[in-house]
Amino acid sequence: MLYGGIEAGGTKIICAVGTGPADLRAQISFPTTTPSETLARIITFFQQQQIVTSLAAIGIGSFGPISPDHHAPDYGYITSTPKPGWAQTDIAGTIKRALGIPVGFDTDVNAAALGERRWGAARGLTTFIYLTVGTGIGGGGISNDRLMHGLLHPEMGHIRLPHDQQVDPFPGICPYHGDCLEGLASGTAMKARWGMSAETLPPDHPAWALEAHYLALACVTFICTLSPQRIILGGGVMSQGHLFPLIRQGVQALLNEYIQASAILKQVETYIAPPGLGSQVGVLGALALAEQAAGESQTGTT
Amino acid sequence: MLYGGIEAGGTKIICAVGTGPADLRAQISFPTTTPSETLARIITFFQQQQIVTSLAAIGIGSFGPISPDHHAPDYGYITSTPKPGWAQTDIAGTIKRALGIPVGFDTDVNAAALGERRWGAARGLTTFIYLTVGTGIGGGGISNDRLMHGLLHPEMGHIRLPHDQQVDPFPGICPYHGDCLEGLASGTAMKARWGMSAETLPPDHPAWALEAHYLALACVTFICTLSPQRIILGGGVMSQGHLFPLIRQGVQALLNEYIQASAILKQVETYIAPPGLGSQVGVLGALALAEQAAGESQTGTT
Repeated sequence: MLYGGIEAGGTKIICAVGTGPADLRAQISFPTTTPSETLARIITFFQQQQIVTSLAAIGIGSFGPISPDHHAPDYGYITSTPKPGWAQTDIAGTIKRALGIPVGFDTDVNAAALGERRWGAARGLTTFIYLTVGTGIGGGGISNDRLMHGLLHPEMGHIRLPHDQQVDPFPGICPYHGDCLEGLASGTAMKARWGMSAETLPPDHPAWALEAHYLALACVTFICTLSPQRIILGGGVMSQGHLFPLIRQGVQALLNEYIQASAILKQVETYIAPPGLGSQVGVLGALALAEQAAGESQTGTT
Repeated sequence: MLYGGIEAGGTKIICAVGTGPADLRAQISFPTTTPSETLARIITFFQQQQIVTSLAAIGIGSFGPISPDHHAPDYGYITSTPKPGWAQTDIAGTIKRALGIPVGFDTDVNAAALGERRWGAARGLTTFIYLTVGTGIGGGGISNDRLMHGLLHPEMGHIRLPHDQQVDPFPGICPYHGDCLEGLASGTAMKARWGMSAETLPPDHPAWALEAHYLALACVTFICTLSPQRIILGGGVMSQGHLFPLIRQGVQALLNEYIQASAILKQVETYIAPPGLGSQVGVLGALALAEQAAGESQTGTT
């Protein structure tokens, strides 16, 4: 069975067709412009694929906030996003009507989590978190073997953290919360604070110790709240691999051996880890959503 | 079917027999002393019950940390508790061997969450949190329709919060983390900070605005991390009902309309709510654990 995957980011769309990491066929990428233009390009790509082959389902991992609840009247919509023109856009419905196949729809980070469990660093786990640290910060995951949903979906980038104004007087850049996690530690925040982007800050710059401190505080919050079996950290900022040891040390120091689990005390290198799927995690996650949607469609779950 | 429930607290044990809130029969309460003495009293109580009637299962909602994983070698143990004499105590196994019936075992707060879903303020919900604010602070809940487990179990009392030393120079009382949530906002912390216990602090004392602020920050963290459909706040400190409106206002102000859900924007009175089972939530939660264990035993799930 062949699937389609759509990684729908706020700045870029990636569409692909395939069955998994070893078999990722046609792939296309283009900027996210207006909803009508962007959705038309997505639909055209997959319609062309459908001429030559049959797709079992499409998966969409989308920027948000979105409505992931199948029972909600606005299911499949991007809802209250500040991105101009995109608020209240029926992305899943539009694509489903155009292509006539089952559609799986979730946040970009939940899709990435599903991809990591299917083929990456979370195989066999029942409860874990996927956090992306890039332009913004977002988190999703799997809890009790299913993607994390509830009232809506997690918004892990917006937790509040201890913020010592003496050490870091930067007020944060979140338009809603100022110094929430995203406000303090996203790539956008780093650039605003230091005047240099994460890619250009040298590894010995004090920016990194501060960044690792905030991300360690966030990991501790997620550990205490959810008790994940693993935390996967992806996104552009995390491609600076020297952050990982700093974050792991920070988490151990902050927890102070309170949680007596060898995964944290002794195997922290695998407990806080990069995505197994690397930079393909987004589009492969969307493919995993498609696979799940095809299965649910067959068993009549949805 | 008749069940036994054990609310195993660090200072007090409550045992009961019944089928639910409307049918809570024999009940006994005694202080938590040494493991051998305490377990003997528990076992004697239920053995006497078993002379006159048959119990289908026993549920234990326990202080912790505990090992709730059926596949772990120390399943059923209280593990690394600082409570003298209780570390590495096989509480579930000892009771199961003595009484010869299925035993359900979880944290006190997960048990309370299950009780609230069975009979209380969380009926029909699939993802919600139960937080107790008393001598300590603990949280549990249900995620994707099942009790929250993962690496171990949540330790929600130990999340870190923004702590403005100018406003509140109190360093916190957590022996592991200083000013984590429990360190700043538990009943023990209130007493240490103000020199008066929560029960004796008058409602117009500035203690309450500060307490509500910390609990609102915690609720926001849990909302952003898990997207719960409801947050239930129980425990001795929360019996001061005037805290609820302050916490609800604080949550709305901190989220700043970022999460567009009417449950938070418009129905916050039911979104952040006291336990439907009141002070019986602990022992009724244990009864719900027993009911679940009996069901799993019949279907061979465990």
